[in-house]
Amino acid sequence: HKEVDVRALATDFLRQYQSELPGVAGDPRQRLAAVLAEIDATGTYRHTHEELVFGARVAWRNSNRCIGRLYWNSLQVRDRRHVATARGVALEAAAHLRVATNGGRIRPVITVFAPDTPDRPGPRIWNDQLIRYAGYARPDGGVLGDPGNTGITEVARRLGWSGGPGTPFDVLPLVVQGGAEPPRHFTLPADAVLEVPIVHPELDWLAEWGLRWHAVPAISSMCLEIGGVCYPAAPFNGWYMGTEIGARNFADTDRYDLLPRFADRLGLDTGSDRSLWRDRALVELNRAVLHSFDLVGASITDHHTESRRFLAHIEREERKGRPVPADWSWIVPPISGSATGVFHRYYDTGDLTPAYVHHPESLALARGETLV
Amino acid sequence: HKEVDVRALATDFLRQYQSELPGVAGDPRQRLAAVLAEIDATGTYRHTHEELVFGARVAWRNSNRCIGRLYWNSLQVRDRRHVATARGVALEAAAHLRVATNGGRIRPVITVFAPDTPDRPGPRIWNDQLIRYAGYARPDGGVLGDPGNTGITEVARRLGWSGGPGTPFDVLPLVVQGGAEPPRHFTLPADAVLEVPIVHPELDWLAEWGLRWHAVPAISSMCLEIGGVCYPAAPFNGWYMGTEIGARNFADTDRYDLLPRFADRLGLDTGSDRSLWRDRALVELNRAVLHSFDLVGASITDHHTESRRFLAHIEREERKGRPVPADWSWIVPPISGSATGVFHRYYDTGDLTPAYVHHPESLALARGETLV
Ligand code: HEM
Ligand code: HEM
Repeated sequence: HKEVDVRALATDFLRQYQSELPGVAGDPRQRLAAVLAEIDATGTYRHTHEELVFGARVAWRNSNRCIGRLYWNSLQVRDRRHVATARGVALEAAAHLRVATNGGRIRPVITVFAPDTPDRPGPRIWNDQLIRYAGYARPDGGVLGDPGNTGITEVARRLGWSGGPGTPFDVLPLVVQGGAEPPRHFTLPADAVLEVPIVHPELDWLAEWGLRWHAVPAISSMCLEIGGVCYPAAPFNGWYMGTEIGARNFADTDRYDLLPRFADRLGLDTGSDRSLWRDRALVELNRAVLHSFDLVGASITDHHTESRRFLAHIEREERKGRPVPADWSWIVPPISGSATGVFHRYYDTGDLTPAYVHHPESLALARGETLV
Repeated sequence: HKEVDVRALATDFLRQYQSELPGVAGDPRQRLAAVLAEIDATGTYRHTHEELVFGARVAWRNSNRCIGRLYWNSLQVRDRRHVATARGVALEAAAHLRVATNGGRIRPVITVFAPDTPDRPGPRIWNDQLIRYAGYARPDGGVLGDPGNTGITEVARRLGWSGGPGTPFDVLPLVVQGGAEPPRHFTLPADAVLEVPIVHPELDWLAEWGLRWHAVPAISSMCLEIGGVCYPAAPFNGWYMGTEIGARNFADTDRYDLLPRFADRLGLDTGSDRSLWRDRALVELNRAVLHSFDLVGASITDHHTESRRFLAHIEREERKGRPVPADWSWIVPPISGSATGVFHRYYDTGDLTPAYVHHPESLALARGETLV
């Protein structure tokens, strides 16, 4: 029954495309007939370049967890559907990062690789982001690096990666699978990875901790679904909101877990919850992140600005008669929630297509839950 | 068709009561038959004292917005169903506050007044909490006091309240309606209202601002619904979680809106969102609240402790085979969300009965949206 679904999903998508971009679309009935005939013959169909661009942008617009959607229509789409090999994907992923990084003035970019077809699966990137720091499990149960990435680190090593220099911030290789072939690992070229050393505007001692973070967050494990076609490798990036690094990556107890050490160094009373030592350390850590990105001229937004932008986005979309699906628990930032406008209202979560989708298999791959 | 509903709801409730407290219940079939006969004869029925206690406690257990449910089974229930006049309610509300305040060691208490019956409505308390600070609308559009309470303040004045001394923290009178009679206003006796002057552990200047808050949060506008019976006046209280005062009442832009002034006084750069001045001011304001309550020996909890307790509550309930309905957006505290365990999971919102329910009319009354 797959074919039936594809026909219906393709029809829906083409109708949406044609109604939102009436001039660009050509003769709607002719295009729809051609697509349906192609589906009948092959079980799938090929998007025009314009349909792909529209689909990728609207999938962003539909991302109900994303607070950064004001600029959805300016997403730069790199059409690499002819690339299906592991090596090709790795090369283009590096090129993606260079285009996106843009010397620090980060551009929202997506690179779309070959889709799944009835004949063969498209390529897959196993890492959940293009740039990730290794997490080396130590015999004592501790982790050197990012404890969120121990699974994919282990996968890379079993695939033959010899490991990084052994810092807490070793950039992982990409683990890429071309079609049905086994996955391979590829080191990211250093010039594709802009990193920001973390310093604090007043707390000079922080520089000595050697913290750093990469400037470009590029999600690489979500499938881009457009009108019945799955693009399993379609890495996309925006720029960071500071809290993602300062409140989550550095602070979550199952990530770098820096709050206790940071609060100790600040001289706070970590013996009592009521001293709000976590809360105070969080604020300073987040100030450090924003300040450090500013110092090197790397784009980053703060949660207050982004909350205002998102409310502007909702207003703009509603003027166009379009609902804005949103998931409160993802949209409201992880610190100072009620100090942002997005906290003080409800949303419909919606479930619109095209969409970026977590396939359970991809989540499992990124966690390293595979025998290699 | 009201009668049909009451029969079904009563039956459900009695079954639940009898299955959770099998020893206490007496002969289940006999009690159910008597209740159904009473409903057939009068359109409603009278809970036994034990049923009322059970219903009020389980309604707390079912409150999916409440993080403080670990102690649901120790709620003290004041059975005042024989009280239906405005004056009687006002007197008992003051008595409730004295019992609950307990010299600072606050006790969770509910006082249940006469229910709605087919013959006549029960009494109603128009204020949304027993203790609230007046908000006096000024001609220039500003507000003296709590801007959240301008509606009920205006209602009290039209009912003849001459107004308080004119501070930002004038305790409002209770506005109580007995059955179908018009509402009247009643000044709360001073000894029923424990207040806490707000000072900061290090920032001595804060004491001069004259901030204060009441120690007991007692919600008075929600209807207690048990097995098809509505108790529209059933004020209940716990103790505060600090963020309710420090992050919401003092900080929300439509409440006391203290962050800009506080941040200015701290010397923070309020010209840029990126200085995180709101976030820093929030932490200090919340420290001040916890510290001030501790100083006078008034019970208060912090969001880290309460998050842990709530997770313990979930574990305990699940061991008993009971689901814990929870609304993420209410359970996760308004500051430092991701630093608390309750952030890092999902919940079912559920919709269980007995329950505390916001009736739209009550919300409107509390906002003063009534011609008096
Ligand atoms: C331009 C700047 C952008 C900002 C500031 C931004 C901000 C965010 C934030 C803060 C989150 C929540 C992340 C988390 O809590 O883990 C998020 C999630 C998300 N964003 Fe954006 N975003 C941006 C660009 C984009 C772009 C270009 C796309 C796609 C084309 C996108 C799609 C998504 C999706 C699909 C999620 C959910 C990810 C998941 O389920 O793990 N965003 N975004
Ligand atoms: C014992 C200490 C208690 C603590 C620390 C506590 C904590 C909280 C908090 C933080 C909220 C969210 C308030 C807001 O964001 O506006 C809340 C809501 C709520 N709590 Fe509790 N609570 C306690 C006791 C109680 C009791 C005794 C009851 C009922 C018998 C109760 C029933 C509710 C209900 C119904 C709500 C939702 C209120 C609404 O919809 O506006 N809580 N609680």
